[in-house]
Amino acid sequence: MLPTSIVIHEEGPREGFQFERQFIATARKLELIEALAQTGLAQIQVVSFVNPKRVPNMADADEVVAALRPRDGVRYTGLWLNEQGLERALRAPSLTVAGRIGLCASAPFLARNQNATPESARAAQRRMAGTFLAHGIAVDQGVIQAAFGCNYAGDVPLPVLLQTIADLLDIAAERGERIRMLTLADTMAWATPRSIREIVGAVRDKHPDLDLVLHLHDTRGMGIANAYAGMSMGVRRFDAAVGGLGGCPFAGHKGAAGNVCTEDLVFMCDEMGIETGIDLQCLIEAARLAQDIVGHELPGAVMKGGALSAMRRSLLSAQ
Amino acid sequence: MLPTSIVIHEEGPREGFQFERQFIATARKLELIEALAQTGLAQIQVVSFVNPKRVPNMADADEVVAALRPRDGVRYTGLWLNEQGLERALRAPSLTVAGRIGLCASAPFLARNQNATPESARAAQRRMAGTFLAHGIAVDQGVIQAAFGCNYAGDVPLPVLLQTIADLLDIAAERGERIRMLTLADTMAWATPRSIREIVGAVRDKHPDLDLVLHLHDTRGMGIANAYAGMSMGVRRFDAAVGGLGGCPFAGHKGAAGNVCTEDLVFMCDEMGIETGIDLQCLIEAARLAQDIVGHELPGAVMKGGALSAMRRSLLSAQ
Repeated sequence: MLPTSIVIHEEGPREGFQFERQFIATARKLELIEALAQTGLAQIQVVSFVNPKRVPNMADADEVVAALRPRDGVRYTGLWLNEQGLERALRAPSLTVAGRIGLCASAPFLARNQNATPESARAAQRRMAGTFLAHGIAVDQGVIQAAFGCNYAGDVPLPVLLQTIADLLDIAAERGERIRMLTLADTMAWATPRSIREIVGAVRDKHPDLDLVLHLHDTRGMGIANAYAGMSMGVRRFDAAVGGLGGCPFAGHKGAAGNVCTEDLVFMCDEMGIETGIDLQCLIEAARLAQDIVGHELPGAVMKGGALSAMRRSLLSAQ
Repeated sequence: MLPTSIVIHEEGPREGFQFERQFIATARKLELIEALAQTGLAQIQVVSFVNPKRVPNMADADEVVAALRPRDGVRYTGLWLNEQGLERALRAPSLTVAGRIGLCASAPFLARNQNATPESARAAQRRMAGTFLAHGIAVDQGVIQAAFGCNYAGDVPLPVLLQTIADLLDIAAERGERIRMLTLADTMAWATPRSIREIVGAVRDKHPDLDLVLHLHDTRGMGIANAYAGMSMGVRRFDAAVGGLGGCPFAGHKGAAGNVCTEDLVFMCDEMGIETGIDLQCLIEAARLAQDIVGHELPGAVMKGGALSAMRRSLLSAQ
């Protein structure tokens, strides 16, 4: 049963720019964010507050968020991996800071990506939860990295995933908080439609009240199929990146490792009668701008193949 | 309900080479075909017998089929659009010539692609059926082009599609023959998982005995999702192209317009426990060879992202 509408969290600026080797000028980053903000997207992740030595393209994150103009109906979000990053996000009035904590289902990836152990990660998330509460922010969102498998650990057994989720919910519960929205991140693109259905089903059986979000990477070409499989299980929230931008710099990938492509996802939804609130043609323009900004071809297909809605209109007007 | 196994008809050499602008040397075409024949693929479409003025890369089609070495368990197939082409195929002992007739669900595409009308196309297919029978070949396969929509006609109404199928079955029936295997071709990439499910369902309701084949183009990024949707309806036969090679030169596309990528499809099946009989690692090598031969990047993802089976093995051996 497909949902009648979905909500897309656009992560292209953050996912995409963090992945590019050459430094992208702040003005051009803002140009893409502005273009995305005009498409009907309600949530756009614009920066990550990380160490610029590890991710040089995020060195201007504070400048980017300082320059953002508020726009009705658009929430700008950021990413951080530690309290230093969170403090920077909290100083940016243009950002919506969600009380989001996260754990990783793969210890080897955690070591590489964040130089942490499962124990130190849980301790860090406990401190993070405290910081949110100290700022009056409810701790109600969670994310599980490497939920579907890991390039450094292999398949993630379902009990390990469920335990990681339980640990995360516990960290909130210790503070009297409750995670309501949980992102299952296929950080290294191990998911297929079958595992999406099985894992979403298993997590929902255990936690029927959780509002699930899928964060899908397209590294092995499964992104759109996985999103469809998620929708067929009733999932209504998806992260995506315009043009298929991005990829985690520490996931050990070659080739296009970006998030599922936003405009391809919106295209599929449009054609299947699933509302997104997003203007596909306007989004395709933003995808072309993203391609221009990064200076190389992006994997998105619909910006090259063309939207059918536009084609239908031109066929009608030619009659 | 997913099938336990599927059958892939590899069309990379035909789809891919017909689409390339520069002429590819006969020896290199044969090199790719040989590589594909070693992967476990049971059917490989190697050439189209078309006018070399329209498709210059097929000028050496007779040489290619003359040079093919027979290989146990591999059938080489060809494509033709008229009786002249069929006669060339019949002269090639290396080819398996199926008694396959076809119609197009879109009159405007038929005009552009084959310079034909629905009436002239039916007449031509009647003659073609006669030629098959004169050579002792049963007329038992059919194909419907533009089954899911058309860049020149828009959406194909279901009654039009069903009538086109009925017309095709009638052409065989007039000769006392029966179409058993029917390909629904998404020639211009209009399908989405929803329309795949709806149209496959409607065709199967009407013709429950037909063995359906999906021919899916990935022009709008839906190829793998559409294949999954087809499998979820129990479809067991798929055309595909290694590396995502190809595209119809007359479909009016920019960008990657190739068939659904064989190795990405095999990857999905491997990971979902669906047998294909194909060695994924061997197929990835063939995809890299295809990329080398055409001299530009191909859209296939798994050849860049890496197969998980190989990753699991190296993780195990590192323990």
